[in-house]
Amino acid sequence: MKLATLKGGRDGRLAVVSDDLARAADASEVAATMQAAIDDWAAAAPALQELADSIDAGKAETFPFEPSECAAILPRAYQWVDASAYLSHVELVRKARGAEMPKNLYEDPLMYQGASDSMIGPGDDIALADEAWGIDMEAEVFVILDDVPMGVTREAAKSHIKLVGILNDVSLRNLIPAELGKGFGFLQGKPTTAFSPVVATPESLGAAWDGTKMTLDMEVSLNGEPLGRPNAGTDLYFDIPTLIAHAARSRRLAAGTILGTGTISNHDRAAGSACLAELRVIETIEHGEPRTPFMRFGDRVRIEMRDADGSSAFGAIDQRVVKYDNPA
Amino acid sequence: MKLATLKGGRDGRLAVVSDDLARAADASEVAATMQAAIDDWAAAAPALQELADSIDAGKAETFPFEPSECAAILPRAYQWVDASAYLSHVELVRKARGAEMPKNLYEDPLMYQGASDSMIGPGDDIALADEAWGIDMEAEVFVILDDVPMGVTREAAKSHIKLVGILNDVSLRNLIPAELGKGFGFLQGKPTTAFSPVVATPESLGAAWDGTKMTLDMEVSLNGEPLGRPNAGTDLYFDIPTLIAHAARSRRLAAGTILGTGTISNHDRAAGSACLAELRVIETIEHGEPRTPFMRFGDRVRIEMRDADGSSAFGAIDQRVVKYDNPA
Repeated sequence: MKLATLKGGRDGRLAVVSDDLARAADASEVAATMQAAIDDWAAAAPALQELADSIDAGKAETFPFEPSECAAILPRAYQWVDASAYLSHVELVRKARGAEMPKNLYEDPLMYQGASDSMIGPGDDIALADEAWGIDMEAEVFVILDDVPMGVTREAAKSHIKLVGILNDVSLRNLIPAELGKGFGFLQGKPTTAFSPVVATPESLGAAWDGTKMTLDMEVSLNGEPLGRPNAGTDLYFDIPTLIAHAARSRRLAAGTILGTGTISNHDRAAGSACLAELRVIETIEHGEPRTPFMRFGDRVRIEMRDADGSSAFGAIDQRVVKYDNPA
Repeated sequence: MKLATLKGGRDGRLAVVSDDLARAADASEVAATMQAAIDDWAAAAPALQELADSIDAGKAETFPFEPSECAAILPRAYQWVDASAYLSHVELVRKARGAEMPKNLYEDPLMYQGASDSMIGPGDDIALADEAWGIDMEAEVFVILDDVPMGVTREAAKSHIKLVGILNDVSLRNLIPAELGKGFGFLQGKPTTAFSPVVATPESLGAAWDGTKMTLDMEVSLNGEPLGRPNAGTDLYFDIPTLIAHAARSRRLAAGTILGTGTISNHDRAAGSACLAELRVIETIEHGEPRTPFMRFGDRVRIEMRDADGSSAFGAIDQRVVKYDNPA
């Protein structure tokens, strides 16, 4: 079963989408919004599945599915926590700095609390005031959780993964060093995050979801040129249930929590990169300085995961970077 | 006008409370929840004010107001950003470590993205699995904002402050050093935050609100013994409009954003402290080691702001620390 949130109001309108992403049906009779559905998932999921089945059977009233009409699956969410669990990325960044990789990063996941109050859709512009901030993408896998009790074990965390998708964790690389240097984590350096057109239930993903992670390649391109296609199932050092248990160590996580893996990165450099920062680090190691600039106004980033048969698992994130004019 | 959220469901029920905190009236005919009210504040505020006026005139249907029946004003919020804007606190912490105070902290506010998915009420237990985590309170002023555009100026930010209250930013001091050492900010070290019984509109606070900050003392006690009563209007290095502009530099802030000042701290040491960490730092500077332990199971913390005439501005936060048993 695949779900999308169509634009409309602060929280959008929930829709069920056909497996091939061609048709959609309004789901408001089951739940008006994605948040309402996840708040009462035990009741909503079977009813949404029934609607999905009736789309497949040609029995539901459907309309053409247009990714450009999608909002973020949760246009405003109560929580967004993001890890950096592909340690090949972290190792590269440290290596470029000439810094040691701290041993505790192999035992204790890196994770930050992200801004969740206004998420954007797969075709929405990345609007920012200043190119000099160092505008970058990060292509990630995320999950949506139902209510997770405090102190949940890794094993028990698995059952709380209700939906899976991909996102673009837009990052402002030139703001981040000073911000992290203050010690309180990201704030200005991680602006609005963009989400795939649809999310899918784990059971609908077949072998693409192995119970703890996605196993497909993450295809990232910039202005039509491939940047990388690292595999999401390779080199994920902390799997998603481990990350959930980490987030829930000292507090419960409310239904609708979005949890991300961090930018996908493989040790195999032939896989390329899922963000420009990593490519620039590799260039710095090889050539003494970065050669690829960060994104500029007018640039387009495209992020997608395809199944073995070439079909898109979650639809494509395809965004343009544009200039934002500050209010007077 | 004062507002409260009474317990009930995931988002509680909005109530208007009399100025003396004695009586309340159901506000569901105006807005079912605090989030619904702030989503459409231009329409909701006058209607809620009318209800408040009718309580004062003895014309509304009211019931006794019981702070223990309050949930957090936003039991789940879309955003919680918290500063550390009383630099006397930051200076003390650095001094105890023998570290320099970085100059940029006088120019660029410290602020972190906090967890907002499950906030608790003024009388709710602080339930945690382990006393050894170093359980501490932080008494703070917060504001609730309506929609704030990206790049808002300090001057324009003032008009977005719709409600004011106080909160207890519970902190786990012994988890924080390792967490901040990883560089991504707070996650496990800042568990569930607790909120005052009511919030008030700035215009209803009279001289207690000067347009950019509260001017009352923050009274903090532990097991009935006074811990401190620092003044919230003294030594606030970055005022609240400045903090809003900082948060909104690279993204908009959605209606219902909660923004905090950080733990209140005065340079005048006679004012005492609003958190145990600061008292322990002072003890370390004076005696070479801390003498006051962090909170233990069974301890009670009380936080309140009183007006010149002794009346409580927002009601008291009064919480017990209890042991939480992890699920199997």
